[in-house]
Amino acid sequence: MARTQPEVTTSVGEVPRPRHLPAAFTAVELADRLWAPRQRVVRERTVPFLYGQMEKIGTIEALEVTKPPGPLAFPYRKNNTSTSVMYWDSDIAKWIETASYTLATHRDPALDALIDDIVARIAMAQEADGYFNSFFQRREPAKKWTNLRDWHELYCLGHMIEAAVAHNQATGKTNLLDIVRRHVDLVARLFGPGEGQRRGYCGHEEIELALVKLSRLTGEQRYLDLARYFIDERGRQPHYFDIEARTRGADPADYWYSTYHYNQSHVPVREQDRVVGHAVRAMYLYCAMADLAAETGDARLLGACRRLWADLNDKRLYVTGGLGPSEHNEGFTTDYDLPNETAYAETCASVGLVFWAHRMTLLESDGRYADVMEQALYNNALSGLSLDGERFFYDNPLASRGSHHRWTWHRCPCCPPNIARLMASLGSYVYSTAPGELAVHLYAESNARLEVDGVAASLKQTTNYPWEGTVELAVDPAMPIEFTLRLRLPGWCRSATLAINGQMLDTKALTERGYACLRRRWQSGDKVTLTLAMPVERLYAHPDVHADQGRVALKRGPIVYCVEAVDTSAPPHRLALPRDEAVTSRLEPDLLGGIATLSGTALAAEPVDPALYRTEPWPARRVPFKAVPYHVWDHREAGEMVVWLREA
Amino acid sequence: MARTQPEVTTSVGEVPRPRHLPAAFTAVELADRLWAPRQRVVRERTVPFLYGQMEKIGTIEALEVTKPPGPLAFPYRKNNTSTSVMYWDSDIAKWIETASYTLATHRDPALDALIDDIVARIAMAQEADGYFNSFFQRREPAKKWTNLRDWHELYCLGHMIEAAVAHNQATGKTNLLDIVRRHVDLVARLFGPGEGQRRGYCGHEEIELALVKLSRLTGEQRYLDLARYFIDERGRQPHYFDIEARTRGADPADYWYSTYHYNQSHVPVREQDRVVGHAVRAMYLYCAMADLAAETGDARLLGACRRLWADLNDKRLYVTGGLGPSEHNEGFTTDYDLPNETAYAETCASVGLVFWAHRMTLLESDGRYADVMEQALYNNALSGLSLDGERFFYDNPLASRGSHHRWTWHRCPCCPPNIARLMASLGSYVYSTAPGELAVHLYAESNARLEVDGVAASLKQTTNYPWEGTVELAVDPAMPIEFTLRLRLPGWCRSATLAINGQMLDTKALTERGYACLRRRWQSGDKVTLTLAMPVERLYAHPDVHADQGRVALKRGPIVYCVEAVDTSAPPHRLALPRDEAVTSRLEPDLLGGIATLSGTALAAEPVDPALYRTEPWPARRVPFKAVPYHVWDHREAGEMVVWLREA
Repeated sequence: MARTQPEVTTSVGEVPRPRHLPAAFTAVELADRLWAPRQRVVRERTVPFLYGQMEKIGTIEALEVTKPPGPLAFPYRKNNTSTSVMYWDSDIAKWIETASYTLATHRDPALDALIDDIVARIAMAQEADGYFNSFFQRREPAKKWTNLRDWHELYCLGHMIEAAVAHNQATGKTNLLDIVRRHVDLVARLFGPGEGQRRGYCGHEEIELALVKLSRLTGEQRYLDLARYFIDERGRQPHYFDIEARTRGADPADYWYSTYHYNQSHVPVREQDRVVGHAVRAMYLYCAMADLAAETGDARLLGACRRLWADLNDKRLYVTGGLGPSEHNEGFTTDYDLPNETAYAETCASVGLVFWAHRMTLLESDGRYADVMEQALYNNALSGLSLDGERFFYDNPLASRGSHHRWTWHRCPCCPPNIARLMASLGSYVYSTAPGELAVHLYAESNARLEVDGVAASLKQTTNYPWEGTVELAVDPAMPIEFTLRLRLPGWCRSATLAINGQMLDTKALTERGYACLRRRWQSGDKVTLTLAMPVERLYAHPDVHADQGRVALKRGPIVYCVEAVDTSAPPHRLALPRDEAVTSRLEPDLLGGIATLSGTALAAEPVDPALYRTEPWPARRVPFKAVPYHVWDHREAGEMVVWLREA
Repeated sequence: MARTQPEVTTSVGEVPRPRHLPAAFTAVELADRLWAPRQRVVRERTVPFLYGQMEKIGTIEALEVTKPPGPLAFPYRKNNTSTSVMYWDSDIAKWIETASYTLATHRDPALDALIDDIVARIAMAQEADGYFNSFFQRREPAKKWTNLRDWHELYCLGHMIEAAVAHNQATGKTNLLDIVRRHVDLVARLFGPGEGQRRGYCGHEEIELALVKLSRLTGEQRYLDLARYFIDERGRQPHYFDIEARTRGADPADYWYSTYHYNQSHVPVREQDRVVGHAVRAMYLYCAMADLAAETGDARLLGACRRLWADLNDKRLYVTGGLGPSEHNEGFTTDYDLPNETAYAETCASVGLVFWAHRMTLLESDGRYADVMEQALYNNALSGLSLDGERFFYDNPLASRGSHHRWTWHRCPCCPPNIARLMASLGSYVYSTAPGELAVHLYAESNARLEVDGVAASLKQTTNYPWEGTVELAVDPAMPIEFTLRLRLPGWCRSATLAINGQMLDTKALTERGYACLRRRWQSGDKVTLTLAMPVERLYAHPDVHADQGRVALKRGPIVYCVEAVDTSAPPHRLALPRDEAVTSRLEPDLLGGIATLSGTALAAEPVDPALYRTEPWPARRVPFKAVPYHVWDHREAGEMVVWLREA
């Protein structure tokens, strides 16, 4: 049903790049020791656990819109009159999306029936005109569409669209899809440039990318048009949120954040060049911008994406792939402002960055994007989910004094189903295809059933990545066929070797924008061997990152490490790693699900003197330490943690 | 009128130390280039400026208690139902105290009349039973004595007592003194262990030390008894603040700070051994404890003072003499928690530390206390007042990105008159006397008219301290007399030489607890020369002060330095000072009132690469920098400031 895919260029002379489409999440079976167990735990533990939590706090019961509402489980916040209860529908939607992904690979009649039951409740609640939102219907029926700025109404629908798409793809059912399409039709009647229509868009972006997904699934142009309308309208003057505020009798100036940077509507999106405001909203917006650039060939949208990408990556991204340092706006602040102990770096924001980076990767065929996708995925995003699948980080600081822990629930439980849906659909991030091309973006032991130019092709990855750097790829097309196999050469890797069927290749000559491009007539039995040198690296932050000056982060492959108190005999804040001290890696299959750890010796200042200040440096002793991947911290004895170690 | 002064010992075999009394503030004329200009600016600018501000915001008009109150200038705070308006009387009191000190040395009939006018208004307002508090009388007459925990009622009286004492000492007048004595008599009837009396004490300590002052001035034991009652009662169970809350129909548990650590009433004061809670309150309490130990010989009170002193100095004091790192409680947090950029370090808290350290100095004749008095005075406290006397720091961070500035007024304007009254009375901190002893605690060019064992003795200090380390003391008794001249040898000084009339002395042999003790028959014309080596020192913080690891503070003599952006070609956060790099000092008479600056060369990391992270350290260039005394920062171009420079 897919429409014709335009190519996109933004500057004269730029070679159009073939637009890649991701592998279906059902087409890839992960068999590695990192992601596969996480997918299993999401399926077996997180999905039932999240459902139980939603039942417990009332999220499920809230769907009974004809019953009188009970007391508000979470009170309205003082400043912006919002409450997390108003986006409970989105929690349900992300749960359905996650559950659907798991169903696609692991049949589970009870889960299937449970989803259908929820869908039936939603169907019961849906109004004749297509409207469905449990919060507004049950609690605030008079306030529908009166506060798009703060009240997440289209955001909830957006997530329900994503759920419906996943549910349809996983099960073939249309029960939820039909519901959301009727709601979207209502929205399309209500919003637009026509007479009597509202010029609005949602304060929390999400529906835009969801509408593109719906358009891709259904082949319907009108969904894409609606997404584009929302994107084009955003930030235009006169400003819709001003008009809307006045319409409901409020003063537009009485906005808790003061400016519309918070929701990226301060200027039209094509004029934006700095990542600002709430980080999750920003990521979802940029996803939709990339989607629309891909769908429509809109060079100005792609140009804005590239500028925003550069701004994020050059000035506002944690080494862990976290983003949005401030709790105040759950988002961005100023250039190079990346405090460690108070880093907000919300799990959802990193998940959103994975979404955006994935879209940019497919659109641009440029490894820089996939590098960041990998960085966010393996570090800040994965950190959000405990090994047992039932505890979650909302914020992901890069240093802790020992009191920051994963929680089992949160006032705003957006992160658990967000990391869960990413885990459950991770296969589609690994591979993509385009006419005459097949690309490998991530390395993980797996089996994939893909198709190039209409010919089925299996791909089997054998590797212990990310703990070891050797990857074997067995390519198995149904018939011999010429195509380009694009293999990502990670930006962190300074030495990669490639062989086909034992024959060494000139990697450098084959490399184009971060991908080795192996064009040949592939046939069954072909085997590619990629070896990525994976030494322990020290990373140094830009001189304007205050918090990291004089400090060093340890990284090996895509994995950022941290030192926890349990792994040293001196508190981590006392350690300084000598500049020339060797740090070595070691596989520890029995530790924290099987990881590579780093080991070294640091200098630990010794408080030999009770004085608070003295005129000589404190003496130091040599202290062995171990570092573990940041994403598994806080699984053992509680204590201090640091990512950025001082360097001596 | 002074009562007999007991000696205090706390352990068996401890030699009782003679108790020193400070010089009268009228007896010392400062003639130096640091304090004397500050005293002048307080007299000529700050006193009229503060009066003008109080007129402008309504503090003065608020004394008209029979008129209906206007709208509350500052609304009640959400958590503790307090508003700074409820302690406006204390602002007036501190202003009267400051103005009185200036009157004592510089007659000013208009100012004298202005004070009398305010006193007349207070007299008009005072009720028949002695009560006076403009806030309660005008706004909340039904709430008198109902919330000692939060509402500062006795605190205001305490400051009015201090004002009355200073006013009486400066002018000989008793108009204000009579008013406060009548009020104190009422308080003594209302509070106490007797039947029908309240067992309470103030949530914000202050009246206790004021009552001791009043007792000393009047010779009345009953004021001392009341102070002692408040001190003894504090923190006893059943807890008065619990009882009081229930009495007014509130739940004691519904206290914004949760525990009574906030106001140091969590346990009886003699059992306290950690500095906790609101820092200003803590300092005022400890002052009163030291006062009572001095007045009554209470060894357990002195023991508590010593333990609290050690806790503060070993674990909770900024290198600038600032204290109380947290804005949340305007006070103390955990051991070694001394963040720089977010340091609260309220000016009032440092002023309070000067008060406490002064009392401990006089009580213990131990230079350790005077060292801290000097540290707080020259750095965090002095920082609170601008060179022009009309701008003030409330909080005193040790690092700034350039947006922290002195303000001309504040919601809670407690600091301006606090630093002003300290400046105006500073002479009395320089000298003290005891039977057979005369002590010099601070060095500053000055003339003093003192008395030892009934014999008048002038003392003339000639020095350019704190910028140079040579001090000449001309001792001029009215007749030859034997006494011990105690000269403080600052703890920061590693090499001091002493001579009398050109004859070198064995400094070490004469030194006792931080003071060189020169016992001889002094006669007119005797001259002591003290030379304190004053090299630039690097200070290193205890290994558990997270924020300062890998960093160094520059200090010379008592002065802590900082680097401001205006004095380097690279932003201060990029600088790292090599361990062996020389830092030199230089007098700059024309800069910022005349100071010694430090100069050196640091390494500045250069952002030669737009990357946010790289695997090699950024290259560095050598950058000259200048450092200025912390107390004069933020007087030139706005920009970054750091006290703790990284060390390379």
